[in-house]
This record gives sequence, C-alpha cells and structure tokens, in this order.
Amino acid sequence: MEVIPDDFSLIEDRLHHYVDAGCDLIFTTGGTGLTPDDITPEATRAVIAREAPGFSEAMRIEGARHTPLGILSRGVSGVAGHTLIVNFPGSPKAIGQLFPVLVPTLAHAVRTLRGDSRHGQRD
Amino acid sequence: MEVIPDDFSLIEDRLHHYVDAGCDLIFTTGGTGLTPDDITPEATRAVIAREAPGFSEAMRIEGARHTPLGILSRGVSGVAGHTLIVNFPGSPKAIGQLFPVLVPTLAHAVRTLRGDSRHGQRD
Amino acid sequence: MEVIPDDFSLIEDRLHHYVDAGCDLIFTTGGTGLTPDDITPEATRAVIAREAPGFSEAMRIEGARHTPLGILSRGVSGVAGHTLIVNFPGSPKAIGQLFPVLVPTLAHAVRTLRGDSRHGQRD
Repeated sequence: MEVIPDDFSLIEDRLHHYVDAGCDLIFTTGGTGLTPDDITPEATRAVIAREAPGFSEAMRIEGARHTPLGILSRGVSGVAGHTLIVNFPGSPKAIGQLFPVLVPTLAHAVRTLRGDSRHGQRD
Repeated sequence: MEVIPDDFSLIEDRLHHYVDAGCDLIFTTGGTGLTPDDITPEATRAVIAREAPGFSEAMRIEGARHTPLGILSRGVSGVAGHTLIVNFPGSPKAIGQLFPVLVPTLAHAVRTLRGDSRHGQRD
Repeated sequence: MEVIPDDFSLIEDRLHHYVDAGCDLIFTTGGTGLTPDDITPEATRAVIAREAPGFSEAMRIEGARHTPLGILSRGVSGVAGHTLIVNFPGSPKAIGQLFPVLVPTLAHAVRTLRGDSRHGQRD
C-alpha cells in the first residue's frame, strides 16, 4: 500500500510500476471526484490498454443505493498487461460499501488475466 | 438558453463559450440519439477534459424504467474547466423524468467544481 | 453469420465489410472478457464513429442479475455509418439472457439509423 499525491505523472508512474511488477490487482482510492485536482481516472486511463467498465458502472450503481452522490465518482477500471486496475472513491465508508460488488468476480478475473485458456461462462 | 442546429463545430464552439464564461452547469438537450445528425455527445466529448460518466449512466438507467428506448440515449457528461456539462435527450417528457436524478447531486457538484478543498463523502 | 479468430485486424476488417455492405445491425459474440486475447471491444471501438453505450451498460446490468460475473463483460456498442454494432459475450446462455434487453429497441434503432427524420420520444 502506498500513498501518493494527486499528481498525474506520479500516479501514472506508480501504476506502471505495479503493472510491470506483475501484480494481479491494483486498487486505487481517492481522486475520483469533480475537484480540479481529482485526476486519478485520467492517469489510470493513460495506463490501461483495455477498459473493463463493468466494475466502475456496478460500483456507481451500488453507490447510488447508499447516496445520490454515488454517481459523482468518476472511477474507471481496466486491464494493463495482466493486471486489473480499479479506481475506488476515497471515503472509507464508500469503499466498504463498494468492495463487496467486486469480491465475487476477483478470483475469476485473476484467473483469466493470467491467460487461463478455459473460457468462463461470461467471456 | 440558446437553440442551435446539429452542427458539430457550432455546438463545440458554444460549449467552449459557456465554459469560458464561467458557468457552473451546462445542460444540453437533444442530439443524443442514433440519427446520423445526432452528434451532441461527440461535440461534448471534444470539449470536456474529464469524463463524469455517472450522470449519463444513471440517466439511462432511470430512462429505461420509463421506456426500453431509454437506453438509446448516447448522452455524455463531464467537466471542462470548472463547468459540468450534461447531455439530456430532446424529449421534454424524458427531461422531466431524468432531471430529478441529477438534482440531489448538483449543489455538491458545483461546490467541488469551484475547488472547495473540503472533500465530500464520495470524492 | 461468420466465425473468425481473436485477431484485431481481422475483426476490424470484417466489421468494416458488413458496415460497408449496409447491414442495419451487427452482433458479435465472444472476445469480451479479460483474457489477453479478448480484443473484440477494442476492434469494435476502432470501427464505430459514435458510441451508443446504453446497450452495453444495460446488458451488464441484466447480466449481473444472473451472475456477479456479468460485470466482467467489456462489450461496447456504437454506430458506424448506418449500422449499429453490439458486442455480446460468447456464452450462449448469456446471449439468451441478454438479447431480450435489446429486442424492444431494435426496430426504433434501425429506423433512426436509416435517417428517418421524425425524431422519436427519446432522441
């Protein structure tokens, strides 16, 4: 776990670092709002090669069940190399609400990212 | 309020004008369908610097509750400078159905766009 | 109906072929997952001129009602020329679950893609 400032190049650089290190999953938190310094989604988009928008869409839908402000999160999700990157909002409360949306998908996601050639039900 | 034709450069130009004028919010209506001259989302995308897809996603979900055709709206939403731009469909009935989705978020959205450094629950 | 391998240029080429042939609708199946060779969405994005994300969003929402893995589908949807292209996952079971989401929109979609100037309720 690493804490870094809202600096586009720095976020991009650290994401590349963890992708190159072979991490299966990278979760970022914060920097997904409308404040001018919220640029985590843009830095993430610069790193991913293939978007996987269903994670972010489902998290916004779940977020909106808890507060109308849930739709404000601009988080993106996608794949770089063999790594899945997902942007979470910064609020610990929101993270606790949204993480369960991902949990049932992560084992399958990691297996397919590693190139398991047996296609699953939904590929 | 201004009415302009389905002209890409003109839409782009007028959006830039209102962004530069410091508007907090720009709502467009119409030009979001599949008809060949519907290019408002593309012109909007050319202006925004940061996508805020949750507005458009939530509007399509709400629209689909009223008619299956709700998913046809190609509207986008995002931030240019300190301005939030949201594309609405052209039907007054649809606008009436969809605007309430945004209402509870707008005060918070405008505060954060202005750079209020106190991060909210979901940023 | 045509079966082709997970080859970016080949998918792109065949999509262009059917668009140029004047097809109203192109449905692809498979190649939408996280496996490294799943690149149908990227090839589709290279062909479409205007995104119509509501189809793919609604399909993921419906898919998630059947299995949490439904959010993994990276399918995109959009318009090239007068043709609507929609990516489906590869599983016949998933296709059976997701196709009904599109059915009530297709007649209207084809009419508007052909340039019928009478705007519908949601355009």
